[in-house]
Amino acid sequence: MTRTPSKPFLDRLAGLLGPKGYTTDLDSMAPWLTDWRGKYTGHAAAMLSPASTQEVAAVVRLCADEQVALVPQGGNSGMVGGATPDATGDQLLLSLRRMNRMRSIDTAARIAVADAGVILEAFHQEALAHGLRFPLTLGGKGSATIGGLVSTNAGGTQVLRHGTMRALVAGIEAVLPDGSIFDGLAPLKKDNRGYDLRHLLCGAEGTLGIVTAASLHLVPAAAARRTAWIAIDSPEQALILLRQLDASIGRELEGFEIIPHACLDAVLRHIPQTRAPIAAVHPWYVLAELAGESDQALSDALERELAAALDAGLIRDVVIAKNDRESDDFWRLRDSISEAERAEGPALQHDVSVPVDRMPTFIADNPARLTAAFPGTRALSFGHLGDGNVHHHVQPPVGVDGAAWLAEHGTAVSRLVYSHVIDLGGSISAEHGIGQMKRDILAELDSPARLAALRGIKAGLDPAGIFNPGKLIV
Amino acid sequence: MTRTPSKPFLDRLAGLLGPKGYTTDLDSMAPWLTDWRGKYTGHAAAMLSPASTQEVAAVVRLCADEQVALVPQGGNSGMVGGATPDATGDQLLLSLRRMNRMRSIDTAARIAVADAGVILEAFHQEALAHGLRFPLTLGGKGSATIGGLVSTNAGGTQVLRHGTMRALVAGIEAVLPDGSIFDGLAPLKKDNRGYDLRHLLCGAEGTLGIVTAASLHLVPAAAARRTAWIAIDSPEQALILLRQLDASIGRELEGFEIIPHACLDAVLRHIPQTRAPIAAVHPWYVLAELAGESDQALSDALERELAAALDAGLIRDVVIAKNDRESDDFWRLRDSISEAERAEGPALQHDVSVPVDRMPTFIADNPARLTAAFPGTRALSFGHLGDGNVHHHVQPPVGVDGAAWLAEHGTAVSRLVYSHVIDLGGSISAEHGIGQMKRDILAELDSPARLAALRGIKAGLDPAGIFNPGKLIV
Repeated sequence: MTRTPSKPFLDRLAGLLGPKGYTTDLDSMAPWLTDWRGKYTGHAAAMLSPASTQEVAAVVRLCADEQVALVPQGGNSGMVGGATPDATGDQLLLSLRRMNRMRSIDTAARIAVADAGVILEAFHQEALAHGLRFPLTLGGKGSATIGGLVSTNAGGTQVLRHGTMRALVAGIEAVLPDGSIFDGLAPLKKDNRGYDLRHLLCGAEGTLGIVTAASLHLVPAAAARRTAWIAIDSPEQALILLRQLDASIGRELEGFEIIPHACLDAVLRHIPQTRAPIAAVHPWYVLAELAGESDQALSDALERELAAALDAGLIRDVVIAKNDRESDDFWRLRDSISEAERAEGPALQHDVSVPVDRMPTFIADNPARLTAAFPGTRALSFGHLGDGNVHHHVQPPVGVDGAAWLAEHGTAVSRLVYSHVIDLGGSISAEHGIGQMKRDILAELDSPARLAALRGIKAGLDPAGIFNPGKLIV
Repeated sequence: MTRTPSKPFLDRLAGLLGPKGYTTDLDSMAPWLTDWRGKYTGHAAAMLSPASTQEVAAVVRLCADEQVALVPQGGNSGMVGGATPDATGDQLLLSLRRMNRMRSIDTAARIAVADAGVILEAFHQEALAHGLRFPLTLGGKGSATIGGLVSTNAGGTQVLRHGTMRALVAGIEAVLPDGSIFDGLAPLKKDNRGYDLRHLLCGAEGTLGIVTAASLHLVPAAAARRTAWIAIDSPEQALILLRQLDASIGRELEGFEIIPHACLDAVLRHIPQTRAPIAAVHPWYVLAELAGESDQALSDALERELAAALDAGLIRDVVIAKNDRESDDFWRLRDSISEAERAEGPALQHDVSVPVDRMPTFIADNPARLTAAFPGTRALSFGHLGDGNVHHHVQPPVGVDGAAWLAEHGTAVSRLVYSHVIDLGGSISAEHGIGQMKRDILAELDSPARLAALRGIKAGLDPAGIFNPGKLIV
């Protein structure tokens, strides 16, 4: 168990970090003690903002000695309350944002090394300034940090081609729970010295180590992109289309999102200055994007493949964006779904994955499972079909007090969704992680073998439990 | 500490596994108690050959209760004694070879699920029979098993394009040290449920879990390949060539091996029916291979790129194989180096990696470092330049009794090589693992932070130390 930090202990931390690195001022801390979705609020004995890996290590050594809990935080844009302290006020918030230096960029090897606090959008710009591209992006790019993206193994809309953060991490520097510094930044393509700490720390949500820097793979900047908005009958048909595109133009296929008409409809009703790319109503849409070197080659390939799909009756209709502005308009429809759904009223959101070929089954079967147990609910799935990952939103029955209904039935509804996912061999968290939001449901529904292994790893690396206690695993 | 198995305990195992699954016959066990290089020999209380994951789990539960050590073994073709029991005779050899069933193959998703004991070559054939290819191969393909390849995160000559085993593993089934079965076979593209057991078990050398099956990614069968034998001045020049080929035809570039003239010379002298592709003597050679769909397109690309390199003075000469037989002849030169080196007399072999761009520095500087401390030694590096991984062989001075000299100086020579590797941010084991061969040097030279983490993970998952004790970490 961790302890309440004493006044003399806090004074030592204040002395170590100086005025820029230490605060207990409530107004300064407030923005970082509530997660950005406003679902979790905590308290902290102090907020620490070290300026270097050595300072992080010194903080951790002190905390290890005193058994005081640390909650690491990057941009505070996580989805599961993983960076919010608990309510006791005994935990220390450890912000990595002050460590925001680019350490190096090697254009020949296409590797950049960045401090944990570098913001994703700044990292994108840094890569572009060197004629390169970091092929991971997501809605929170203006606040999400490299350290947070590594620690949560972030996903986004380019995973289909480039993988999640894990695939882009060439090396990691982290402070371990005993205060030692693990220097694994060297970008080794082969390294069989036993257990892979890089992969273990990636997605560990700060419970095993505090990521202080990362070496990241870059790719050549894409000179061209082409985006298509496709009307289609069903997720089954979309999966067939995906397999066809993958076989013929898989190397250029970077995005493949599916959107049901109800989601598009909500966007059109709630989000200003949006319009449907295809006027007629269709059950489903696919947003597909190619990226490559030649605009003409991409256009030719996309037109050829989609014309064939149209002729074969696999798709109902298609519009290809004529320019970047139209591409952006298509993506805005996709990226506004969550906002539009919020405007519709409260809903339960689930970020789930199953093996790709089982996703149409999940999407088709889940609404009926839900209405059988909870009549009147409406379930919508949209997102990354190519990754076997959809965001699955469940709305309360029409006419009830949504918030009250969710307070009463939400947990049971989610349990039903997650059980279905597990029946299909899937994961109750595809890209958002576990944090505090899914901690208890993970402990309830995951296999005893896996849970015991997770607990063993945690106990072996952080026996005192000072790193982000109460998150991920209990 | 583990215990000596009692007679009643062994009888229970014999009863559980039946006559096909249990033996103490010394002749039957002998081939599996010495590693294939003949460097390590051990004893075993019995050899267990379970027929199913359930039988493996039952064995592990019994051993966990009695704290008896298990040494898992696949094809017994490892390079570091990782599958050889110790000398006490107290350990049980757990062979996975009887579990050699293909469980499924999904040609649309390009995923095959194989039992741990399936042999790599059989797996290759199974994939080809479905029009697909498993893009990992190595010299021991006739004996190496899927479980062993996963547990050692095997490499080979196609890592440049397809990655090591880790990159090809979509899912794992394993028995954990408490006898529970971790079912992680579902091929999820996204799964952020905390610590990634798949990546942790991959390369753990059977010290954390016994891999019983794996889901593996396949790729379309390559219709065509083109192979070039290139004469070049130095590893620096080879690296420049690699970067150029990567930028222009990186998607097709599957192999890029470097070979010094002394290695070619040894092959020509010791291996029958070999001849130099280029008659003149050059300091270094590159063996480059493209794989793709069209023979003509590959030929055109390779000829264009290498003609440009020749014109620019980057390479000295080049021969492109006219057909598959010539390609095979080129590869035979590369694959015979170890055998030729053995014919030259005893040598110390090191399998090391550094960041790719530092490899020329290692190759250039290491011989002088060695001769400064050990006059007369000759050091040769060859292999996977594109992976930052060479096999670095050190030969004793001419005229001395090689075996005696190595017995006296071998450890110190290796320490010098490994220290240099670590100075360059590298790994003392690129692809062969740690096993018992490198266990002590790892404990001596790796960082205390990393070693403590490895020990913590081991203690957390296998507190009684029953899985492959004495290997990898102490």
